[in-house]
Amino acid sequence: MSEQFDAVDIITTKRDEARLSNEQIDWVIDAYTRGAVADEQMSSLAMAILLNGMDREEIARWTAAMIASGERMDFSSLSRPTADKHSTGGVGDKITLPLAPLVAACGVAVPQLSGRGLGHTGGTLDKLESIPGWQADLSNEAMLRQLEDVGAVVCAAGSGLAPADKKLYALRDVTGTVEAIPLIASSIMSKKIAEGTGALVLDVKVGSGAFMKDVESARELAETMVALGTDAGVTTVALLTNMQVPLGLTAGNALEVRESVEVLQGGGPKDVVELTVELAREMLAAAGRDGEDPAAALQDGRAMDVWRRMIVAQGGDPDAALPTARETHEVLAPADGVLTELDAYKIGVAAWRLGAGRARKEDPVQAAAGVEMHAKPGVTVRAGERLLTLHTDTPERFERALDVLDGSFTIAPEGSRPDLLPLLIDRIAD
Amino acid sequence: MSEQFDAVDIITTKRDEARLSNEQIDWVIDAYTRGAVADEQMSSLAMAILLNGMDREEIARWTAAMIASGERMDFSSLSRPTADKHSTGGVGDKITLPLAPLVAACGVAVPQLSGRGLGHTGGTLDKLESIPGWQADLSNEAMLRQLEDVGAVVCAAGSGLAPADKKLYALRDVTGTVEAIPLIASSIMSKKIAEGTGALVLDVKVGSGAFMKDVESARELAETMVALGTDAGVTTVALLTNMQVPLGLTAGNALEVRESVEVLQGGGPKDVVELTVELAREMLAAAGRDGEDPAAALQDGRAMDVWRRMIVAQGGDPDAALPTARETHEVLAPADGVLTELDAYKIGVAAWRLGAGRARKEDPVQAAAGVEMHAKPGVTVRAGERLLTLHTDTPERFERALDVLDGSFTIAPEGSRPDLLPLLIDRIAD
Repeated sequence: MSEQFDAVDIITTKRDEARLSNEQIDWVIDAYTRGAVADEQMSSLAMAILLNGMDREEIARWTAAMIASGERMDFSSLSRPTADKHSTGGVGDKITLPLAPLVAACGVAVPQLSGRGLGHTGGTLDKLESIPGWQADLSNEAMLRQLEDVGAVVCAAGSGLAPADKKLYALRDVTGTVEAIPLIASSIMSKKIAEGTGALVLDVKVGSGAFMKDVESARELAETMVALGTDAGVTTVALLTNMQVPLGLTAGNALEVRESVEVLQGGGPKDVVELTVELAREMLAAAGRDGEDPAAALQDGRAMDVWRRMIVAQGGDPDAALPTARETHEVLAPADGVLTELDAYKIGVAAWRLGAGRARKEDPVQAAAGVEMHAKPGVTVRAGERLLTLHTDTPERFERALDVLDGSFTIAPEGSRPDLLPLLIDRIAD
Repeated sequence: MSEQFDAVDIITTKRDEARLSNEQIDWVIDAYTRGAVADEQMSSLAMAILLNGMDREEIARWTAAMIASGERMDFSSLSRPTADKHSTGGVGDKITLPLAPLVAACGVAVPQLSGRGLGHTGGTLDKLESIPGWQADLSNEAMLRQLEDVGAVVCAAGSGLAPADKKLYALRDVTGTVEAIPLIASSIMSKKIAEGTGALVLDVKVGSGAFMKDVESARELAETMVALGTDAGVTTVALLTNMQVPLGLTAGNALEVRESVEVLQGGGPKDVVELTVELAREMLAAAGRDGEDPAAALQDGRAMDVWRRMIVAQGGDPDAALPTARETHEVLAPADGVLTELDAYKIGVAAWRLGAGRARKEDPVQAAAGVEMHAKPGVTVRAGERLLTLHTDTPERFERALDVLDGSFTIAPEGSRPDLLPLLIDRIAD
């Protein structure tokens, strides 16, 4: 017996509702990473974890074991503190784009390792890649240099961080075990802790367009992640925010860059501005800079200056025209009244079907595709007025996008009011 | 999309405590058999089934789908009714050896497809293979001919019966999902129903030496299997029987054949005789022959005649000397008193370690190895008297066998009585 533990013993321990020991967790993650525990064993363990749970100590150890499976980054040589933000994903969530330069403009470095979109939520890298010339891949050295010089970097996460998570995430995706809060929390936090940020603000989305559909499960996920960060020595705060309705007035790669630039110019939709400033405040406070005023840095152009330098540093041209779609299609209001609902999930799926998103990670995306919204819930509209503009380079996609948009909005009699969660639902700290 | 269903949808249905539809079950078993559902998907589904259960209708459909994955046998051309027995496995359980010829002697054909041993319980084929010349493998035609001519056949199950079960069983073995009653029941019953028997008697063992350690779970398994058989049109009855103590006075291949022959000669241990006659009565009644008297057929030599013809038909010599072990070791009673416990599991593991069993299915077994018991619970013993004789061809095995025998028996003050379940605990019929 060259192996110290037996996978079946570990599976049956969790199956029979007992705690996994630190040694069992360390062994199973390491053995899975090197292939000594098979996929079919890890998937039955994941199902047992999903159904029987893990306690705070087990989750912390599981996360630590995933971090130990790969390399760790270190930003301690920087002259400034670091803070990072992670969103659990939503429709129209372009917040990273104005937020990273804004926080950097206030004196805190932002090392934002990001991903590409899959399904109905967009990916930050896909959005930035609609800027001509911009490159997502940086070496660790180039990343550190940009953090020191510019203060903000948004780039692709290297494959060296938490490889166990990468393997486990792909497995969970095909085995019905994605929706396990301990595994979601450890997946997110292992990468963020390995990345070496000093402070972390989590934007946990709630609603149809989000992974978490209700406040209760979002709160559980947020509390689990905050505990994990705290236990690992990273100052961690979570905001629960509304994803019943898309963020801002655009969902789609170039469309969202355009809107982000409007915000950096001191304009843009109110909800995007409010959430950007609120997350910036949390990041600055978590990094020990609570004297800064991010609202002012957004209005006076300091954030815009950092944005331009951040884009240039990665080969992009901040002045280049963004791609526009070859075809558009208008969706008109069918009646007079108050727009009371605009379903985030359906708008997200429509943008995906128009070409903004991908079903498999090797699929390409269209830079210009997406959905532009002309009204948000609470607004009074007139019959025949534009509600949505659909953008795509491939007009045969309009039909399937329109299919999913059926029932995506509600126009109620005048005087009605939307029944929606507030943008900022709650704040979780340890 | 060439596939009608999605494995993840099926997994999440059961994970979220809903029923699987007939169509989902048919698809997932078929797709798993042909490799379109991956092992890691089936194992997470198996864990969800283990933790969330299946109802009677789901289990029946699951079983039917496993039967449909392979061929079915048909004994309807025989001139006699058929009955089969299945034991969930125990230590010293040689009952098939006297039982099959006994039932055949009473006019009911017994098509006994059997397996080899794994772990601490012996396999019927391993036992019979200790008879010089005897062959386990028969073609379907040879099996039918022997059933017509001799009335009883004990042979290896072909790989064509329920191949889905074979694949699933191997998966469950390494993924901590063996102990799911719906999956155990459907595994056993799919093979027995596919085998085409007209009646089936289940011997569900309870106690340390059995798979089911307590009466409650054994009863649940028995009820599930009886329902499955009944729903499939097979008259099915289950007996719950004691496996706290080994059956008879021997555990080991040739040792058990010798004891079985003693029973067929009208002698042998009381518990083996009692269980053999009781199971024969149930099989005869289930096959519509309740006027027969199996106790008489055992005493008057009719069962022995069939045994001899059954062994000869498969190339064996019923008069040949059975192999004996090169080395023996005696375990003596350490004190005067009443033997109140003799742990079936520990005796089974000792026999296995002496060479009677195997850890992997490709391992060989020793024909002569095993444990001979000189006393059973309830008997008064004197210090220094023989309790056990260990048999092996490889004396270096004695030490590990003696290790596990430590604590395998209890000698209590004279006047004590064992606190054990009765041999026949309960009878379950639909």
